[in-house]
Parts: sequence; C-alpha cells; structure tokens
Amino acid sequence: MTGGALWLNGTLYDEAPPLSRDRGLLLGDGLFETVLVRRGSPILLSEHLDRMRRSAAALSFPPLPALEERLGSALEDLFASAEESGSPPLMAFRVTLTRGPGPRGLALPATQEASLCAQLDPYDPAAVSTESAAVIEAPRIDPLDPLASHKTTSALRWIFARRAARAAGADVAILRTIDGDLAEADFANLFAVVDGRVVTPPLDRGVLPGVTRAFVLHRLSEESRPGDERPLHAADLCRASEIFLTSSLVGVRSLRRVDGKPLSESSPVADVLAAAYEALV
Amino acid sequence: MTGGALWLNGTLYDEAPPLSRDRGLLLGDGLFETVLVRRGSPILLSEHLDRMRRSAAALSFPPLPALEERLGSALEDLFASAEESGSPPLMAFRVTLTRGPGPRGLALPATQEASLCAQLDPYDPAAVSTESAAVIEAPRIDPLDPLASHKTTSALRWIFARRAARAAGADVAILRTIDGDLAEADFANLFAVVDGRVVTPPLDRGVLPGVTRAFVLHRLSEESRPGDERPLHAADLCRASEIFLTSSLVGVRSLRRVDGKPLSESSPVADVLAAAYEALV
Repeated sequence: MTGGALWLNGTLYDEAPPLSRDRGLLLGDGLFETVLVRRGSPILLSEHLDRMRRSAAALSFPPLPALEERLGSALEDLFASAEESGSPPLMAFRVTLTRGPGPRGLALPATQEASLCAQLDPYDPAAVSTESAAVIEAPRIDPLDPLASHKTTSALRWIFARRAARAAGADVAILRTIDGDLAEADFANLFAVVDGRVVTPPLDRGVLPGVTRAFVLHRLSEESRPGDERPLHAADLCRASEIFLTSSLVGVRSLRRVDGKPLSESSPVADVLAAAYEALV
Repeated sequence: MTGGALWLNGTLYDEAPPLSRDRGLLLGDGLFETVLVRRGSPILLSEHLDRMRRSAAALSFPPLPALEERLGSALEDLFASAEESGSPPLMAFRVTLTRGPGPRGLALPATQEASLCAQLDPYDPAAVSTESAAVIEAPRIDPLDPLASHKTTSALRWIFARRAARAAGADVAILRTIDGDLAEADFANLFAVVDGRVVTPPLDRGVLPGVTRAFVLHRLSEESRPGDERPLHAADLCRASEIFLTSSLVGVRSLRRVDGKPLSESSPVADVLAAAYEALV
C-alpha cells in the first residue's frame, strides 16, 4: 500500500509522490523535533534525539538505528545546500519522523517503514514575537493524556491555541489544564519567579518535557538555586516578579504582558539563564 | 517558503516534493473525510463536504470554491485510473485538505495556499473487525475541546486509543469524556438501545458530528422512533439490548462484546438501520 494513485490540486499522479500517502500526512502519526543551529552547530541535539527515541518507543514506532549518524549526515547535506545561498548565523533544523505508509485505518501497520525527514531553514529570533501572552480557556490539557508528554505532529490544538491568543491581542497562548492550573505555552514551557523562587509546572500536569526546560532546571541546580516543579496558578502569575518561556529556538524569553497586564521590564533571573543558553555550542 | 530543500530517508531533494513541507505533514494542520463509494457512487458526499466546509471555516482555512466540482473531477480521474486494474464494488474515497506550506511556527500563514488531495482505494468491509470494543481510560475527550467537533488530521489520539483497545484484546476503543461518560468509538459514533430507546451521546459531549450518525438519527425520526441524544454511561451499556457503531465505511455495525462481556447476537434495530444505509445510492 505504499504506492497507489493520488489526486493533488487538480493533478493525477499515477504513483503518489513521497510522503503523500504517509500516515504522517493522513493521520498526524508522527513525531518531531526542532533544533537550533548556531554557526553550524546543532544545540543540545542528543537531548532532542533522546526525546524522539523515547517517544518513538512509547508510541510503538520501529527502532531508530543510527539516528544520530543519519541526522548528522542530513544536517551536513542540508547545510551544504544552504551554504550556496549563504547561511545565516542561526538556523532551525526540523526533524520529522512519520509512521510511513500503511493500509487505511487506525490500526498500526503490520510492518512499518517509518520515514525520517529533515529540513534546515534560516531562523531570525527577532522575527518571533513573545512579548505578550494570553491565558486561553480552550483547548485545555488533560494531565492524564498519554500523548501530552510527546512532541507529535498532531499539533492542530497548538495552532488553535495560538490563533485564540492572537485573537485576544497576544503573541502566544498559555494553556490551562482541565483542573484550571497553568500547564505551558503553545510552543514553549512556562516559568515564573514567585517569592524569589523559580517555579515551573511539573511534567505530571501534562507538560511537554522540553529540552530547554530541562537545561534551565539543570542550570538552576548547578547554581544552588533549584527550581520548584509544582502546579502553577493564575494567582502565581499575578504575584510573579518574572515570567518567562523556554524553547529550543527562542531559548529563554521574558514575557512583558500577560492578559494585558504589564510585567516588570527587568528580568534578572531570565537574563542569566538566557545568557547561559546562548553560550551553548 | 513553499520550496526549500528536504532530506528524506537519506536522499537530499533540492526542491522538496509536493506536500513534504506542507503544514498538514509538519503540524497535522488539516481536515479529512472518508466517503464510501458503492459501485462508483459516493455515498452522502454532499454531507461530507458540508462538514469539511464548516470545519474549514471554523479553523480559518481559506474558502473552498467549487469543492464539489473539483472532487467530482478527482473521483472521476481516480476511478478511471483504478478501473484499469478492475474496480471492486466498494471503495474508500479519502479527501484531505491541508493548510499548505508556510513559514515555520504555529501562526497561520499570512497567505494560505491550502492543498486538496484525494485517493481512492479498494474497501473490503469483511476485513474490518468491529466485533468487540474496550472502554479505555485514556486518552479522554474534553467536551469543551473546540477541536472535538472537527475531523482533523491531528489524529494520533485515535491511533493511540485503537492501540490501547487492541492491547486489551478488543477490536475498537470506546473513549470516555473527562467527566466519565462515554463519548464515541475511535473511528465511529456510538449508539445503544436502552429500555427500548435508541440512545447516542449528544454533540456537546465532544462527539464528532458523524455523517452516518446524522443519517441514523434522521432515519429514526422518519420511523417515528426518534433517537435520544443524551449522555451515555457505562451502566447504560450493561443494560443495553444492542450496542452499535456508525461510520461512513462500516455503515451500522453491532458490537458483540464490550470489555469482554458478550452481547446478544440479535440486533433488530441495528439490522434495520444497516439495511437502510446499504440501500443508499
């Protein structure tokens, strides 16, 4: 069932193009990672690939032999191709693992031929606005959702969340759990400095185990200022001296407004963490 | 941003193949419909396309002009292509609408070029097992989830649900809401005959507005035996004289076991409805 015809935007392909009949496209049956590439170096690549491997195993994808080597070679090829047009200092390396083609339906194919694809695009951090956030009412996160801990290509809920935030005049969305506490931002993990302590929701609140989140928690431990992984509530945000987001591409970014309410322009804790992330090679 | 290089399973494409950098593949940013084709005739096609159009509008996809005409032509092309190898009496016409390519990130592209693709595959109803179901604990459905009423390609949760059912020795999964009542099956809507009345969960329980579900409810009204749209609980299933599933491909199918407990082999209500669906042209 890998082949078969495909009609696409008015054109009939007797043999479907690569990926066009893949479960990744048809059912969001995939995983992804986005890795920051700084002057040719992928930042925390092995941490990203560890997460992909863990999720792949949890979701019964076939084993991923030589993942580092294959993606190292992908990155080299893509970098060489990009260099022809002059590579910017920062790029985004997007890796997508899909279940591959299969017979119609939800059941896992008896034999899986997963596809691994990668792309490398210029990344301009100044073009990504993260000044303001809105706490949105829906969609909400179910802490018992077994998919909450995986970075899957079934990502429409995050797109919906972002659209809701934009409609509220904010740059990014902060999502609640079904219990009302705050879980994470639409593309990033959420931290707040409350009563002088750095707080982030624990993973069992349905939060994605972010690579930059883990870096920040590790860094705080090293500085003998361990972060508190505990449920975070809207009331905490009101009292917070700093609120910041973490993701691989933006690193550590302070919010300046939540639900229209201005926050301090000063963010000493986030600034130190941001600098530590920017020093990674 | 439509083009760009792509590395796929060891091969570098200087120009990415169609759909390979589409938000449908990268973020599950798409909608789909699966339509039964009986002897060349798509069953309830306009109902399916109405749903796709409604969902597309709700999710800010661009307008879909001449959708019927374009897909009519797609079906004709695909049917002609399939006929060369002899078309079976039943086929599955799968239509996928994706957001198209766009810059990296969750925000909707400023200009969208949605992609419409279609495929037509043989369908053998005997190969689809729907004898037994298992009520699974997770994932659960949030009745307030704004995406619950749309048939999206971010479908990994249904794959996960099906896998959980198979692990429990059943063919299909029945999903609960976060409130504990029963919402729907992994690929189908859920009906039960309780105290002589046909019951199905209402749409505001986070249930997909199934085309076959609507057909069944309409048919029951016509027969002066209106269905009850009300929350359905596990206790209802224990008392039910019949439990059946509805979907476009399987039509109306009676379950024979739920959570290992056998149900009656006789299903007079479902049999009449199944026959009515099979009479559609």
